[in-house]
Amino acid sequence: MRFLRGLLRYGPAIALVGWFGWSAVASAQTDPLPSWRDRAAKQAIVKFVQDTTTEGGPSFVPPPERIATFDQDGTLWVEHPMYTQVVYCLERVAAVVKAKPELAKVEPFKTVLSGNREAIAKLPIQDLYKILAATLTGMSVEKFTTEAKAWLDTAKDPRWKRPYTELTYLPMQEVLRYLRDRGYRTYIVTGGGQDFVRVYAETVYGIPPEQVVGTAGATRYSYDKQGNPFLTKEPKLLLNDNDAGKPEGIHLMIGRRPYAAFGNSTGDRQMLEYTRAGDGTRLAMLVLHDDAKREYAYGPATGLPATRVGSFTQALYDEAKRKGWIVISIKNDWKRVFTFEP
Amino acid sequence: MRFLRGLLRYGPAIALVGWFGWSAVASAQTDPLPSWRDRAAKQAIVKFVQDTTTEGGPSFVPPPERIATFDQDGTLWVEHPMYTQVVYCLERVAAVVKAKPELAKVEPFKTVLSGNREAIAKLPIQDLYKILAATLTGMSVEKFTTEAKAWLDTAKDPRWKRPYTELTYLPMQEVLRYLRDRGYRTYIVTGGGQDFVRVYAETVYGIPPEQVVGTAGATRYSYDKQGNPFLTKEPKLLLNDNDAGKPEGIHLMIGRRPYAAFGNSTGDRQMLEYTRAGDGTRLAMLVLHDDAKREYAYGPATGLPATRVGSFTQALYDEAKRKGWIVISIKNDWKRVFTFEP
Repeated sequence: MRFLRGLLRYGPAIALVGWFGWSAVASAQTDPLPSWRDRAAKQAIVKFVQDTTTEGGPSFVPPPERIATFDQDGTLWVEHPMYTQVVYCLERVAAVVKAKPELAKVEPFKTVLSGNREAIAKLPIQDLYKILAATLTGMSVEKFTTEAKAWLDTAKDPRWKRPYTELTYLPMQEVLRYLRDRGYRTYIVTGGGQDFVRVYAETVYGIPPEQVVGTAGATRYSYDKQGNPFLTKEPKLLLNDNDAGKPEGIHLMIGRRPYAAFGNSTGDRQMLEYTRAGDGTRLAMLVLHDDAKREYAYGPATGLPATRVGSFTQALYDEAKRKGWIVISIKNDWKRVFTFEP
Repeated sequence: MRFLRGLLRYGPAIALVGWFGWSAVASAQTDPLPSWRDRAAKQAIVKFVQDTTTEGGPSFVPPPERIATFDQDGTLWVEHPMYTQVVYCLERVAAVVKAKPELAKVEPFKTVLSGNREAIAKLPIQDLYKILAATLTGMSVEKFTTEAKAWLDTAKDPRWKRPYTELTYLPMQEVLRYLRDRGYRTYIVTGGGQDFVRVYAETVYGIPPEQVVGTAGATRYSYDKQGNPFLTKEPKLLLNDNDAGKPEGIHLMIGRRPYAAFGNSTGDRQMLEYTRAGDGTRLAMLVLHDDAKREYAYGPATGLPATRVGSFTQALYDEAKRKGWIVISIKNDWKRVFTFEP
């Protein structure tokens, strides 16, 4: 019940989702994807849904097998210039150091506390892991959920001055809803932390916790002083849900091969490949960030080398073209990117 | 599609499930649990369902939170004298040795091939692990599924001379269906192999693969000679879904605390404890095997020490009584145990 009460704090987000829900239903008979321009990407989605849900058709998929998987960062919401969860971890460092003051003089915490953005951006990956471990583990799952919710309630993206939970792509929300309306179960399959994404996935995407597959650590069952059991988040990795870890995580957590998969980076390559390797009609799509004005441009759209965040390489682009994975151009395929656009 | 076609081989089992489905619907208004005697256990189940599904009531649980978890071996089907999956592994040894003849002279394979039941029963647990690893890993998930299905189609329990998949408890099938009819999602949370149970859980229990949580090993993503990707089952344990591993596995795979949990052994103790530690109305039940005539009697019903299989200890029995976990007596609470009883 505490979980549900917590969700009520997301009043504005719930109102938005409700509004779009109504909007989608009202226009369902004319256009399930009103924020999409009528180009190849939209046509591929509509054809896939029609083909796999037409009873008696050669590509019909029985409802229990209708699984669609979505990467999150860069596919369902903004990932640039830094993954939201990494922002969360960096901003939690102050609280962690307050509880353990001896960390203030130890790297990488010292650099994070300095607020020097350039120095923080240059921290080696091993230091980033130390920050993730210190801010994401060592507490009960309930305490973690409470802390993450409190942060999501107040933190704002510096560019749009809005809560991170509003930075989801309206066209992708339409795809999620369209697929669910046609009997698909929508899963998030993210390299991000499973517990972190579960905190808001139901409110933001309409995806319940049991349909969030992510990078997951072990928990440890023990008892408090009153003898009540609780689970502690441990700094031990169970599933690295990136690259080959995505199909492995899908097998572990779902046990069925998806019929449709959406991603935006090399970390999604194997998920798309695994999806397409199944029998029958399968859909694989990649979001290309090529709209510096409305969102960001990076990867093959820019000719610049791939960055640590969102590595859509030229090689992945070429593979997609060769194999019939459909590339979604934010600039050309989406009429609107965000719900808050005028 | 291959998966669905495979299921069609379970013609008789599907027919049975269909019949009970119809039967349950027809009698739903009078009695959702017709195979249960009107005693404390049945009354507790009915009261729990009514309390948690009555809108506006103090114990109402919103549908998305309605999760019920069931141990399998000894809770949903027969586990004595040997877990069905262990029988499978022992009977697969011949095929494994045929593929690798050098194993014929190596223990524990030599003992298993000898057919000496007493010697096999005395194999130390480390030898059992070697047999599990040799028969459950090292092949693709598709090959494993095909092999397990083929065995389940033909293997028969020596006492009842029936397929193992028919040895499910009719009263527990009624509980599964009753809970689902009232908006609960039913999960299996088993110490058995997740991939093994997923092979038949949909046909036998109406539980889809994504709602089976079990002991799970890693898989490895690689490519065949034609460049097609596939997943290989690896001998590396990810989740030991017994004891504290059950609540840990529930957090990992479901991310919500159950409102009802059913078990029958010390391996289920923490799952029941974790379930009951949640807010509001929670149900914890244990099946006691005390009916040597219709099924088996072991554990506290007999005064004999706990065995390797199905360790319902006197201590667990006492804890259940002390904490209000409800013990189901097969002898006294169930009018019928199996569907095939006259």
